[in-house]
Amino acid sequence: MGSLTGSTLDRFTEYSAHEGLGLILATKRKLHEEKSEYQTIEVYETTKFGNLLTLDGLVMLTGRDNFIYHEMMVHPALFTHPDPKRILIIGGGDCGCLQEALKHPVERVDMVELDERVTRVSEQYFPELCASNNDARASIYFLDGIKWVEDASEGSYDVIIVDSTDPIGQAARLFQAPFYTDCRRALGDQGILVVQSESPLLNRELIKSIHSEMDSAGFPEIATIHYPQCTYPSGWWSSTLASAAMLGEFRSQEIGKHFATRYYNKDIHAAAFALPGFLQETLARSLKTRD
Amino acid sequence: MGSLTGSTLDRFTEYSAHEGLGLILATKRKLHEEKSEYQTIEVYETTKFGNLLTLDGLVMLTGRDNFIYHEMMVHPALFTHPDPKRILIIGGGDCGCLQEALKHPVERVDMVELDERVTRVSEQYFPELCASNNDARASIYFLDGIKWVEDASEGSYDVIIVDSTDPIGQAARLFQAPFYTDCRRALGDQGILVVQSESPLLNRELIKSIHSEMDSAGFPEIATIHYPQCTYPSGWWSSTLASAAMLGEFRSQEIGKHFATRYYNKDIHAAAFALPGFLQETLARSLKTRD
Repeated sequence: MGSLTGSTLDRFTEYSAHEGLGLILATKRKLHEEKSEYQTIEVYETTKFGNLLTLDGLVMLTGRDNFIYHEMMVHPALFTHPDPKRILIIGGGDCGCLQEALKHPVERVDMVELDERVTRVSEQYFPELCASNNDARASIYFLDGIKWVEDASEGSYDVIIVDSTDPIGQAARLFQAPFYTDCRRALGDQGILVVQSESPLLNRELIKSIHSEMDSAGFPEIATIHYPQCTYPSGWWSSTLASAAMLGEFRSQEIGKHFATRYYNKDIHAAAFALPGFLQETLARSLKTRD
Repeated sequence: MGSLTGSTLDRFTEYSAHEGLGLILATKRKLHEEKSEYQTIEVYETTKFGNLLTLDGLVMLTGRDNFIYHEMMVHPALFTHPDPKRILIIGGGDCGCLQEALKHPVERVDMVELDERVTRVSEQYFPELCASNNDARASIYFLDGIKWVEDASEGSYDVIIVDSTDPIGQAARLFQAPFYTDCRRALGDQGILVVQSESPLLNRELIKSIHSEMDSAGFPEIATIHYPQCTYPSGWWSSTLASAAMLGEFRSQEIGKHFATRYYNKDIHAAAFALPGFLQETLARSLKTRD
């Protein structure tokens, strides 16, 4: 991060000298600022993007466009699994993924977020994401997600969703084979792992590495999906799914029948798996290296 | 545009107070600046996005990500038309669309750009986009594209590509029914019109209006496609196609056989037509209004 990052006058700026790229969001005022045990949490009211949550100066979500990310982190995996009943969310402290998962007829969703303050701040400033937090099927734990998965019984979850920050510091281990191996065990043979996997334009090598780490962890099926996410770097984002079962089929007849979505639908599900040539090529090189 | 737009120190900034949104690209130096008869043309060398071309302070393209836009403006239309031989490009002075169109076995491509200086500057700073400018099938005219289409004979083009700037000033007429009516006549019954139609997140009402204007112009088939474009506002962009013939079918067997692309491919072609729910809803309202 360069020195430009931060809030001056009536603008929030996230700037990365490393990427040579920055985003500006016009703000009306800063609503909240605190240093939690883990990070600096800030909330701004923007002029056009609703409320903005940042962690250590990086955009986590805005009220206007987070629906794309949260829908695409949850529904492709949950409509691919034949009968997802037991869901684990690692991270996801803003509760957006929790809410989307609870739209399905699941038995339980465990959310394991390291920093309780992220959730408490979200409850205050993003109540629309936290409206399902008291659902009887939801359990929220403020604990280390890596340890949680390590301790999970074999085959105890149908879907694990890793809604993490960037792979730096504490979160780096969430992108590596030892964690994925624990997820593989906790999922059993039908389960699906989905992780946020950054920008297809900026982070191709990371996506390649995630595929390689998932392969090392024993997942035979790995697929990356992509979608716009306007306030994340490059405006283009991805999730990567892994399973011991097939990832191509999905319960298309069920989509749109039981609840509404704003970005995701049956056509978008299929479309999100269509990879640009340059990304196919990067991932093919990854496979060749492993052969 | 707010007062922040411009270049300070080692950064180019495009900021819109109206959208409450801005983009920063780190620059090494400004390579070129001139006021042409029509606009201010600037070229920067960026740190991570190659060369950057701006018109009146707005990003037109970067060397790094323009391939997505140019491929998606050209190939979906040219692989949908059964036998595209006669192509017209309105605008497109950087010659990126021209180059992509010439990859097809066309008989001729006429490019009609208002501002000769945009093309001359592009020849100097984006030679990779202008490598086909001397192709015997290419004719470049520095004239008013609206007048050109007005004067075109009936059925004289198979595909018309409108690679314009935003719908302000001179370019506004390129988004309106009278121009589309002239395109309809110049295309005949098999031809396809494709126009850049801005951001699905920021410009939904404009996309709706384009559909409505194309409908007024007598095009029975209208479809919007979408794709990432990292350095355009919101990082997410669209093109809208119109035809008197069907737009769903395409020559999928031909894709990838004759030339390489970096974003576009057979799967991406189909995927780009999958619309998010919120955009389907906007366009459905547009249809209802007209019924």
